[in-house]
Amino acid sequence: MTAPLEFEITARDGAARRGLLRTRCGVLETPAFMPVATYGVVRGVSPRDLIYLGAQILLANTFHLHERPGEEAIAKAGGLHGWSGWRGPWLTDSGGYQVTSLAERARVSEEGVAFASPLDGRRRLLTPESAVAIQEALGADIAMVLDECISTGGADAERSAAAMERSLRWAERCARARRRGDQALFGIVQGGSDVALRQRSARALAGLGFDGIAHGGLGLGEESELRAALVAEAHNAWPEQQPRYLMGLGRPEDLVAGIAQGVDLFDCVIPTRHARHGMLFTSAGSLAIRNARFAGDDDPPDPGCACPACSSHSRGYLRHLFQVGDALGPRLATLHNLRFYFQLLERARRAITSGSFAALHAEVAAAARTRVA
Amino acid sequence: MTAPLEFEITARDGAARRGLLRTRCGVLETPAFMPVATYGVVRGVSPRDLIYLGAQILLANTFHLHERPGEEAIAKAGGLHGWSGWRGPWLTDSGGYQVTSLAERARVSEEGVAFASPLDGRRRLLTPESAVAIQEALGADIAMVLDECISTGGADAERSAAAMERSLRWAERCARARRRGDQALFGIVQGGSDVALRQRSARALAGLGFDGIAHGGLGLGEESELRAALVAEAHNAWPEQQPRYLMGLGRPEDLVAGIAQGVDLFDCVIPTRHARHGMLFTSAGSLAIRNARFAGDDDPPDPGCACPACSSHSRGYLRHLFQVGDALGPRLATLHNLRFYFQLLERARRAITSGSFAALHAEVAAAARTRVA
Repeated sequence: MTAPLEFEITARDGAARRGLLRTRCGVLETPAFMPVATYGVVRGVSPRDLIYLGAQILLANTFHLHERPGEEAIAKAGGLHGWSGWRGPWLTDSGGYQVTSLAERARVSEEGVAFASPLDGRRRLLTPESAVAIQEALGADIAMVLDECISTGGADAERSAAAMERSLRWAERCARARRRGDQALFGIVQGGSDVALRQRSARALAGLGFDGIAHGGLGLGEESELRAALVAEAHNAWPEQQPRYLMGLGRPEDLVAGIAQGVDLFDCVIPTRHARHGMLFTSAGSLAIRNARFAGDDDPPDPGCACPACSSHSRGYLRHLFQVGDALGPRLATLHNLRFYFQLLERARRAITSGSFAALHAEVAAAARTRVA
Repeated sequence: MTAPLEFEITARDGAARRGLLRTRCGVLETPAFMPVATYGVVRGVSPRDLIYLGAQILLANTFHLHERPGEEAIAKAGGLHGWSGWRGPWLTDSGGYQVTSLAERARVSEEGVAFASPLDGRRRLLTPESAVAIQEALGADIAMVLDECISTGGADAERSAAAMERSLRWAERCARARRRGDQALFGIVQGGSDVALRQRSARALAGLGFDGIAHGGLGLGEESELRAALVAEAHNAWPEQQPRYLMGLGRPEDLVAGIAQGVDLFDCVIPTRHARHGMLFTSAGSLAIRNARFAGDDDPPDPGCACPACSSHSRGYLRHLFQVGDALGPRLATLHNLRFYFQLLERARRAITSGSFAALHAEVAAAARTRVA
């Protein structure tokens, strides 16, 4: 069995690094941002659009796909790639986060997570073994272990420790459950907001033969300084040559902060969800395009942008689309925000190569301070 | 003042005719189908998409645009063309149909139609003069006269006659109200389901200097044989070398029936509205894509089609998009149906040139009989 993943670091700038990540279905340049395709689709956007925008890899939610249409249907249609038409790499989460946050009456035991299906109310059980089996059926290029997610904000130390230890035992069971040699599997560091727990989690995961590491349970309200310390501790305890993934974050400033610490992969619903609410990221801060002051504005949303929205439409027209509830509004905003994110990551990669990442980091952090939302 | 419209008939096959219609903002080949862009946008579809699909001309609804964002805002942004990004020809309706069908407490008098704005409840008045002024401000290439619309089905002869006579007086007022020499204005034949009334309407309109004729108040439940008779009578009474427009119709079989009678222009919400409900037109009849039997279907919606939906996606995946309520479902279905319509019109134009239109007419009529919806 050849390795399901190869990662090559091609440039460094401080702790930031640029690399090439080879998966079964394609190579991507890191640091990379993964748009969220919950149900196997980035809302309102086709694979054709994503190629045009410069997407490299998508993230799908195992829990949602397990519910609809089910992994068997997707496997039969050629896996995520054949079924959805996005032929590039896919990463799937394990379903654990959605099960505990979305399913009704979710109950966590050592065996796994028992829950009632939101669709038909039937009791189901997600175990480390079934999480791996479902992701293998989906045919993801990169799968994630099942972990027990708790919020960093509210959890006490004892609960954080217990969830982390259980997540470790589940990670071991996930590693043993693997059947496909061509699918990468990432471990997930847990431990809430306790630096020592995160360190122990990362060290223990390092011995289990995973293809990469992820930071779980972050971006849930913790201060950015604390988050940086938690990320740093895990990085110290993990093989440096493996890819690192900061799950579920975030805003542009979160991405550059993560990149500065050596994170390679990101995913977040922010660019697409904000877009659907009319919030556009631009080089000069963000625009709430529904705002009445854009009614007669003939300028493009972002004069420096060449996306389908900015190259053809004015702020006034885009606002009108949102006002009348036309689906083209959210769509154009989504195309714009995704392009903004991909461009940001492209700039980060170039800056790492040219040794100027600190300047980009400072610029994005400063823009964040002027942002409305 | 040069003519705002030039129409050249380039081929004939029976009563069917092929032509070139030159408007201020571009030439189109007829017979042509106009997608409905109610609020200045074909729902979920961009001008870029429309160019790709082969659209030639769009129809916008004066009433809706008058409400939002208002004709002044559109005029200030360069008219419909500059504002919306669709730089090809635009036709606008007069607003009369929407006012009487959508506005609350619409009251028709000789002066015009008084109504309460659905947005803010304020009383407004649409007159023949204001209908022309609004359409001139919008900058349409082709404008329509204000007419009094009544249904052909339910109206008695007296009411039909009165509405037709009033529509004639309004048409005269519209003709006198024109200020722009670069905007075409079409008259609208009324007269309900009375052949003699339609004839009188068309004859009277012919003397008023319009640039084209339209059939109003059809497709409201009347039998197709009756409709054919009403259309034929109006055509007989109208200058043959002017463009003819059958308003608001229809299904593929309605289009070919109209073309067979020498109609040049069509508009209808059917392809786009059906698409949003998951109804796809194909060469082998229509597909209700939400149907459970398409769940595991790996075939494209229409194997013979090269649209973005059929070239990249299966019926099973398209059904899934509708099941999970993703905006990409209605969007892909809309792209497909519009392409189907444009292809049908392209086939009709070629068939007229090659003298084989009767065969196409028969084929489409036969396909309609096998259609589900």
